[in-house]
Amino acid sequence: MIAVLKSGTSQKQLDNLTSWLKAQGLDVHISVGNEHTVVGLIGDTSRIDEELLGSLDIVDSVKRISEPFKSANRKFHPDDSIIKVGNTSVGGDTFAIIAGPCSVESEEQVMQIARSVKASGATMLRGGAFKPRTSPYDFQGLKADGIEILLEAKKETGLPIVTEIMNANHLPLFEDVDVIQVGARNMQNFELLKELGKTNKTILLKRGLANTLKEFLMSAEYIMAGGNENIILCERGIRTFETYTRNTLDLSAVPMLKELTHLPIIIDPSHATGVARLVKPMAMAAATCGADGLMIEVHNDPKNALCDGAQSLTPEAFDDVARAVSRILAAIKEL
Amino acid sequence: MIAVLKSGTSQKQLDNLTSWLKAQGLDVHISVGNEHTVVGLIGDTSRIDEELLGSLDIVDSVKRISEPFKSANRKFHPDDSIIKVGNTSVGGDTFAIIAGPCSVESEEQVMQIARSVKASGATMLRGGAFKPRTSPYDFQGLKADGIEILLEAKKETGLPIVTEIMNANHLPLFEDVDVIQVGARNMQNFELLKELGKTNKTILLKRGLANTLKEFLMSAEYIMAGGNENIILCERGIRTFETYTRNTLDLSAVPMLKELTHLPIIIDPSHATGVARLVKPMAMAAATCGADGLMIEVHNDPKNALCDGAQSLTPEAFDDVARAVSRILAAIKEL
Amino acid sequence: MIAVLKSGTSQKQLDNLTSWLKAQGLDVHISVGNEHTVVGLIGDTSRIDEELLGSLDIVDSVKRISEPFKSANRKFHPDDSIIKVGNTSVGGDTFAIIAGPCSVESEEQVMQIARSVKASGATMLRGGAFKPRTSPYDFQGLKADGIEILLEAKKETGLPIVTEIMNANHLPLFEDVDVIQVGARNMQNFELLKELGKTNKTILLKRGLANTLKEFLMSAEYIMAGGNENIILCERGIRTFETYTRNTLDLSAVPMLKELTHLPIIIDPSHATGVARLVKPMAMAAATCGADGLMIEVHNDPKNALCDGAQSLTPEAFDDVARAVSRILAAIKEL
Amino acid sequence: MIAVLKSGTSQKQLDNLTSWLKAQGLDVHISVGNEHTVVGLIGDTSRIDEELLGSLDIVDSVKRISEPFKSANRKFHPDDSIIKVGNTSVGGDTFAIIAGPCSVESEEQVMQIARSVKASGATMLRGGAFKPRTSPYDFQGLKADGIEILLEAKKETGLPIVTEIMNANHLPLFEDVDVIQVGARNMQNFELLKELGKTNKTILLKRGLANTLKEFLMSAEYIMAGGNENIILCERGIRTFETYTRNTLDLSAVPMLKELTHLPIIIDPSHATGVARLVKPMAMAAATCGADGLMIEVHNDPKNALCDGAQSLTPEAFDDVARAVSRILAAIKEL
Repeated sequence: MIAVLKSGTSQKQLDNLTSWLKAQGLDVHISVGNEHTVVGLIGDTSRIDEELLGSLDIVDSVKRISEPFKSANRKFHPDDSIIKVGNTSVGGDTFAIIAGPCSVESEEQVMQIARSVKASGATMLRGGAFKPRTSPYDFQGLKADGIEILLEAKKETGLPIVTEIMNANHLPLFEDVDVIQVGARNMQNFELLKELGKTNKTILLKRGLANTLKEFLMSAEYIMAGGNENIILCERGIRTFETYTRNTLDLSAVPMLKELTHLPIIIDPSHATGVARLVKPMAMAAATCGADGLMIEVHNDPKNALCDGAQSLTPEAFDDVARAVSRILAAIKEL
Repeated sequence: MIAVLKSGTSQKQLDNLTSWLKAQGLDVHISVGNEHTVVGLIGDTSRIDEELLGSLDIVDSVKRISEPFKSANRKFHPDDSIIKVGNTSVGGDTFAIIAGPCSVESEEQVMQIARSVKASGATMLRGGAFKPRTSPYDFQGLKADGIEILLEAKKETGLPIVTEIMNANHLPLFEDVDVIQVGARNMQNFELLKELGKTNKTILLKRGLANTLKEFLMSAEYIMAGGNENIILCERGIRTFETYTRNTLDLSAVPMLKELTHLPIIIDPSHATGVARLVKPMAMAAATCGADGLMIEVHNDPKNALCDGAQSLTPEAFDDVARAVSRILAAIKEL
Repeated sequence: MIAVLKSGTSQKQLDNLTSWLKAQGLDVHISVGNEHTVVGLIGDTSRIDEELLGSLDIVDSVKRISEPFKSANRKFHPDDSIIKVGNTSVGGDTFAIIAGPCSVESEEQVMQIARSVKASGATMLRGGAFKPRTSPYDFQGLKADGIEILLEAKKETGLPIVTEIMNANHLPLFEDVDVIQVGARNMQNFELLKELGKTNKTILLKRGLANTLKEFLMSAEYIMAGGNENIILCERGIRTFETYTRNTLDLSAVPMLKELTHLPIIIDPSHATGVARLVKPMAMAAATCGADGLMIEVHNDPKNALCDGAQSLTPEAFDDVARAVSRILAAIKEL
Repeated sequence: MIAVLKSGTSQKQLDNLTSWLKAQGLDVHISVGNEHTVVGLIGDTSRIDEELLGSLDIVDSVKRISEPFKSANRKFHPDDSIIKVGNTSVGGDTFAIIAGPCSVESEEQVMQIARSVKASGATMLRGGAFKPRTSPYDFQGLKADGIEILLEAKKETGLPIVTEIMNANHLPLFEDVDVIQVGARNMQNFELLKELGKTNKTILLKRGLANTLKEFLMSAEYIMAGGNENIILCERGIRTFETYTRNTLDLSAVPMLKELTHLPIIIDPSHATGVARLVKPMAMAAATCGADGLMIEVHNDPKNALCDGAQSLTPEAFDDVARAVSRILAAIKEL
């Protein structure tokens, strides 16, 4: 970490700062310039609060050189993490395709979709039982009953299931759930992250609507700091000024995250674009640029879906996407 | 609500849509244009899912005419809400000044700051006991002990206290807290909002970093839908591309929210700017444009503060701000 | 176009509005709801100012149904436009690869890069002669001499050349330039667009840093309204809060623009990401999701480049990208 | 300027870098840490390209310590600049109020508005003769005739006039114009800025929709580098995700810019909010937080205005705003 001091800092002030830093177990290296003096902090700076240091009267600005995330950092864990989920996995050579309806609406609906997406090559089944909705008057999900229905579908098809948690108190309901999703709006619900860190469940962590990649990895770090390293990252579009699409899919996050972390990264083109017609091209693009998988909304009757119909694919359209993605992946393997 | 149909919609498709809408208890008014047919939905459209309707094959786009928030809407509640808090209030003629440290660090610290801000005219004391921090390795607050210290300070100074909740399971600890704050990162933690809706505590709801005013009011609506109408809104800066300030204070939100809702609105210039030197001008501007109060970070020793020192005022600087704001308010009253 | 009237609008006010609209050659269709009356405007609404109508006392809001762009609109021109450039083209079956240095620095440099990118499969040569730089103290380009050098390289390699214009007064210097680029910062320099609309040169129009797709197409419309329909659109990243990448590449703009317009769309992964290591994955993703081409910075000596070295590929790295893209395109053709 | 080197940099690479930097006239100070080596550049670093340095293989990141703007920098010019305009001025003790219609529509309109705003206390008259419009089909202004009309109004009322330039070739038409405005969309039209730098006209430079304060000051620097130091900065709202207001007024830019630069700063609440009802509160807030003036749209007949009617005040409403602002300013003087 580097602190740039304001011009006019006295030797006495500099000495005080140096003593304070040394008292925290750091070595200090001072470099005097024409206008500014620069203080280099050497040692374990992960416990130094960047903002505290920056707030000192004599400090102009602070720059952290090492990344503040440790467990998620590729530097200390160069190999890709492969997350086992039931009989399949995410990361490494397996390309995960998680498909299913936005909301669980009925057993019949889920069964029908589950069979169909399995036939098309999906590796996991998704479905929302607890639904975060902007309006308290919108459909909030079937809750525990929804999870029961997903478990039925898992029993029949063998597909591991992915469903969202909104409240750590609901954890007992998720005992047989394979992958617990943390939604974008809860990416910085630190209390929830801490509770999930105490479990050994696989967590699918979605990037917040306006969160940087650094914040995204710090949220993964919250879970990992508790001892749970089974994390799948999911980019699902960020909020910008563009309005033709619901969000802006940040696809360059894929190769960027691949550099920064060893955790697997999947893409949700359904939420990212909000437009069913854009799911296929963006799914193909995601597969091409190195994503470890996809999460796609599929509904047997999108126009009567209880939520997010606009972005859901029919089973037929999903089959077409899965087919195209699988050919692209085969082509890439030969490059 | 209005639905614009795609060109090429057949009469049969239009009839199907009409029947479906009528089945949901709505009247339908059809207007045929050169290129497009427009369907007006008349009646209680609050239960119609805008996205579902927009996802139908024949629908080009949907426009909601009425605001989706009801309880928070000024249309149905033209008078300003005045929220009583202990011996003071927020909204109406009282200008609230909530001051105190970012984090509760010790009893001595809180007592000293509490006495001092009271003398300067603060109407409530703030202090963080549970702290949401981006990094799991940063100081997370004194928790229950922190609340105890705040209650001590309340006993001595008579100032009502404001402190943040991060987990509904902690509610019993907040029994004697006057105002429960929901932080920006939890603005769409709907489970927490629902739990707070079941209490009769006053809630200070902070706007999320990247949330629209409509979403902000929908989150207030979550609490109100549960029966708790004691809500104070707080604008604390939104995320933009600018980097000289930590966030961008959206001050025009004050008069805009005043139109849309009857709930009181306060401004937090400390978090909005992240720079202590900007707190005074922005506090004065907030008072001038109609805000119902301010929330300001004050620390007896900002450079050794355990969090957010960069934006904290010393007690002396706070006294200067409070004095300036009070004169501005007096001047405005005479306008 | 639809205007939603405020509740409380009198019949007389409605009649006045109706007469005013009819005087502008429009038919009017009125639909009375419980809370609101909706006025549909039927006919050529392209000359109605949306904001003017929205500003009337009795109008709550206005919604434009038809897109405001005509010449660029796919609705009125369903087939893809194919833009001929010298012996090659952009759009249709040809995948354009425009490569070259950010700035023209010397004849030797340009010749070396031109030969090399041609050998790797580039279809055009790019190079900046006039450089828009944020700081007046940064290198501003070789100007006329830079264009001369590009023309030399064109003579030798046969590659059509692409270079940026910053001032319509410089047009005579661009007489032999094949494609004139309008940079992101000039996307709404309407005076420049109008002048280019009077020429018959091919224009490569880059999307502005914070411009919507609608504004992007309206800028194309400025050129087309002047009679010049030879336009290539280029997405080059938009400004968001993310900082690991210089901008955020909005790749879903590709399929979205393909729906909205018949003009060809290329992607500039070099400027979009600002990181050389991300160019290959994003170039491959762009090819996969339907882009008509790429614009890639190549420099023989990136670390000594006079601008944007961080995002330039070496000729060897470019060769690797071009090879990968060509195999991806072949694989897609077989899908 | 500081360069942080990647771990694994060899002594030979470090020596090469050092020689290269010294060859550019800089002193170099090296500080070796556990993980990283930090190189401090001492001397005039304004000509070092930050991105070039950052692109070197061995460089992890670069941090500029001194601001890249010199002429606009308050450090080298501690006193506020006061810009003389005719018989009035901007900056210092004078609070500028620039009022008038968005577009010049007719002599009668401008005369009527000019007389009225003068009576209400405006210090300058604004009016658009050349209008930048997103659509080529919208009204583009009366051009030279519009300037003639403004000059007539100046002759009668004595108010200096402010009007926008879109093309440096039009400069001869602006000979008698007192203040030449550069619009937000042209803030980085560097060719235009350079031409204006060669004149001695006062320039009112508007901040771009998505430009940082640093970029804003660099654009002022373009004009100043040419020798013209008569610059008034104008914040007019930035682009965010919020939709209730047209843009988001960044009012904390006022005190922030006051720290960074000696140039005067005014606020345009009309464009910033796009809503006439918000102009008064935001104008008052701007006056309170230290702005040097306001730019406000006034139209005698807003509902028939040819552009931006939604945000224009009637002369009566403007009078009310001017009165409130003047009382606020008097109250502040007494603080």
